[in-house]
Amino acid sequence: MTTVPLLDRLHLQVAFVQEIDKLKRVIRRNTLLDGSRRENDAEHSWQLCMLALVMAEHAPPGIDLERVVAMLLIHDLVEIDAGDTFIYDAEAVLIQAERERQAADRIFGLLPEDQNTKLRALWDEFEDRVTPEAKFAKALDRFAPLLANHHTEGGTWKLYKVTADQVRRNVKIIDAGSPTLGAYARELVELSVQRGHLAEE
Amino acid sequence: MTTVPLLDRLHLQVAFVQEIDKLKRVIRRNTLLDGSRRENDAEHSWQLCMLALVMAEHAPPGIDLERVVAMLLIHDLVEIDAGDTFIYDAEAVLIQAERERQAADRIFGLLPEDQNTKLRALWDEFEDRVTPEAKFAKALDRFAPLLANHHTEGGTWKLYKVTADQVRRNVKIIDAGSPTLGAYARELVELSVQRGHLAEE
Repeated sequence: MTTVPLLDRLHLQVAFVQEIDKLKRVIRRNTLLDGSRRENDAEHSWQLCMLALVMAEHAPPGIDLERVVAMLLIHDLVEIDAGDTFIYDAEAVLIQAERERQAADRIFGLLPEDQNTKLRALWDEFEDRVTPEAKFAKALDRFAPLLANHHTEGGTWKLYKVTADQVRRNVKIIDAGSPTLGAYARELVELSVQRGHLAEE
Repeated sequence: MTTVPLLDRLHLQVAFVQEIDKLKRVIRRNTLLDGSRRENDAEHSWQLCMLALVMAEHAPPGIDLERVVAMLLIHDLVEIDAGDTFIYDAEAVLIQAERERQAADRIFGLLPEDQNTKLRALWDEFEDRVTPEAKFAKALDRFAPLLANHHTEGGTWKLYKVTADQVRRNVKIIDAGSPTLGAYARELVELSVQRGHLAEE
């Protein structure tokens, strides 16, 4: 092989790919839909990308789906160092922000500089939740566990004593990315309350 | 909600998303890089998308990366019904083709008709391996386990008595999608042979 600079880049890219294999061992609170085991971050990321692919029509018109999918692919990589934070644990969420930034420095920093810059910008965009793409990506990240909890008789809501008002506030994040998915999520929440799978307090 | 047709579509899309949760329970032969457990198809699909994102520069110029990623997201969904086939089991590979087509009919058929058509065309494109996008996607699908086997002292090569010539033939599929990754893969194969992790026969 004579393309030495390209090969140098490839070595860095391979090292990055090997490092992020660890995402498969970051365990989330929620289980698979059949309840057989808890979900990991890598398969969760795949599922969100599938949601983006299949539910793109519920995003605002003109959205760049390729960027949404790229964001969802990388959005949890920082949890390799920082661990998964349960969104209803307010104290942990605050502490987590700084640890996640350090993790982003280290993990994206394994890549060639231009790719580090590009993926870090994507991750920052997701976290900042300002662009329509980031809002839609975040909406899916909140929609998936809500759907799972609704279909597993309360799931982590019951397990961690989450209240309906906490979930309703969370639905606003779904609304901000996709009014259609927000409206649908709101219906699922009220159905879950009616069925006794989500408590008012 | 007054958008009834949209809501009908959403119901089908949600049913599809719930069905494909099963991909997380389709277990592959290879393990995670740390050897702690075998990999499932959902996290494998995520990993291939990450490879596509990070190694796009090793694809032929002008490739449509969005389509590559979409193909990789869906490429193994048929295994929900048809199961995982080890690429070095020639007999199983033949029987598998028909079962996978039936699985594609059923699984993509859960979606609204236009989306069924679109995703089925993507899956057919991946399987046919004619377009540069499909060739690159398939190259990554072969590159990832080769990389894993190289870095786990032989992994499934040793476990299932795969020979170096079988792997060398497989490298041609990587070559067809990306000469750079093909050349790199060839070096890894020869290194693995030298180290005694891959047998000549």
